[in-house]
Amino acid sequence: MRIALGLSYLGNAYQGWQSQPSGQTVQDHLERALGEFATQPIATLCAGRTDSGVHGLMQVVHFDTALDREPFSWVRGTNRYLPHDIAVEWAQPVSDGFHARASAVARRYVYVLRESAVRPSVDAGRVGWTFRPLDGRAMEQAAQLLLGEHDFTSFRASACQALSPIKHLTVLDIARRGAYWRFDFQANAFLHHMIRNLMGCLVQVGQGLQSPEWVRDVLAARDRDAAAPTFSPDGLYFLGPVYDPAWGLPNRTAAYDWLP
Amino acid sequence: MRIALGLSYLGNAYQGWQSQPSGQTVQDHLERALGEFATQPIATLCAGRTDSGVHGLMQVVHFDTALDREPFSWVRGTNRYLPHDIAVEWAQPVSDGFHARASAVARRYVYVLRESAVRPSVDAGRVGWTFRPLDGRAMEQAAQLLLGEHDFTSFRASACQALSPIKHLTVLDIARRGAYWRFDFQANAFLHHMIRNLMGCLVQVGQGLQSPEWVRDVLAARDRDAAAPTFSPDGLYFLGPVYDPAWGLPNRTAAYDWLP
Repeated sequence: MRIALGLSYLGNAYQGWQSQPSGQTVQDHLERALGEFATQPIATLCAGRTDSGVHGLMQVVHFDTALDREPFSWVRGTNRYLPHDIAVEWAQPVSDGFHARASAVARRYVYVLRESAVRPSVDAGRVGWTFRPLDGRAMEQAAQLLLGEHDFTSFRASACQALSPIKHLTVLDIARRGAYWRFDFQANAFLHHMIRNLMGCLVQVGQGLQSPEWVRDVLAARDRDAAAPTFSPDGLYFLGPVYDPAWGLPNRTAAYDWLP
Repeated sequence: MRIALGLSYLGNAYQGWQSQPSGQTVQDHLERALGEFATQPIATLCAGRTDSGVHGLMQVVHFDTALDREPFSWVRGTNRYLPHDIAVEWAQPVSDGFHARASAVARRYVYVLRESAVRPSVDAGRVGWTFRPLDGRAMEQAAQLLLGEHDFTSFRASACQALSPIKHLTVLDIARRGAYWRFDFQANAFLHHMIRNLMGCLVQVGQGLQSPEWVRDVLAARDRDAAAPTFSPDGLYFLGPVYDPAWGLPNRTAAYDWLP
């Protein structure tokens, strides 16, 4: 039987998603907790690996098991063994044709950025920060130039394992609530560090250090050195994968409503 | 010269506001940081002491010093020595007639409560939690009975040092955004644990365990045992004191916009 799980986590304390010998990743904690509840080893596959310090609002994983339990008992039972900043949000049986990564037709991320003279405190680790005021119109002009299908080599970390640097960015929305800017991203897939590198460039445009048209040159250069430095992981949240509605999986968790 | 400071902090890591021999309170950290910056001991007085685990969005303190510095250099200089989850938000010279506690004509708090089947993760420690759905109308009816001037002995911790249990509750607003309920409180002053005890009762009413009218009986009993257990500090934020606008002090910080 194949089970899909939705998970949320705060990334600060973890070395990213992907299992490591240290055992200090979100996947390590999840698989240990699943193993405790199921009293047998369980290996999971996720929709999108997140970096160290990046948060997840709806990571999705799948695994195969012979155990037959009520879906919500997977939630309650696994949460008992998870740290307080990781939670299973839902569990649902799926057919064997479902694959958390391969079935995802798109991924959604949000970046929350605080603009204030003083550094974050209550929200430290959960938001990026700029003390220079941002020009929303300039950032929106740059965003328009980034939308669509492009070779995103300039925004790709050297460690990136993706087969192709060509991705289709379908959403880059910028909104503001008080001191907080919110950047919504959606693409078929993202390269390693792609959003943090896009954020680095958008913030330079917003601060007036570069013109909006500069991002076109950065794209054209196909060279990581053309872009701005990788922005902080603190404000980055994986909102989750997008699946065909026919799979019938939940696509929101309570924590969505917490974001500005 | 008297200086007023506005501060924000996440309470989870600290043993409340008030200085303790352990040195692990917010006041201890602030006074150490001020001492480092000023290179002389500085003693502060605050507008409202917060409990262990309670957060502050705009705590206000004052202190006296012979040092003559630009106001913002107090902010920048002190923040260099503060932990990442405490920040000075502003500094302003005030006349000697100003007193952070005595000049406050009211205090404002907000309680953020998450209603969801699954416990918090991304927002753990920052929100209270109930898995039982809440009836907003019932809670509003109870809130109406709590507004005004009352003897709040039933909502008072035994350790409370206030001279009188009679307080005037002028605001108790309840609003919802998605999975998050927000309770806004304002009173001339609050007793020790008063808001957490009010929250315990409001949640019992919201869950249908008690009728809205029950809170009238609780008030009338003037007995701590008549009320519900003290609710978790996790979702409680001190929004700050209210001063006569003639003092010209800021009354908002960026982090206000972070709350649901």
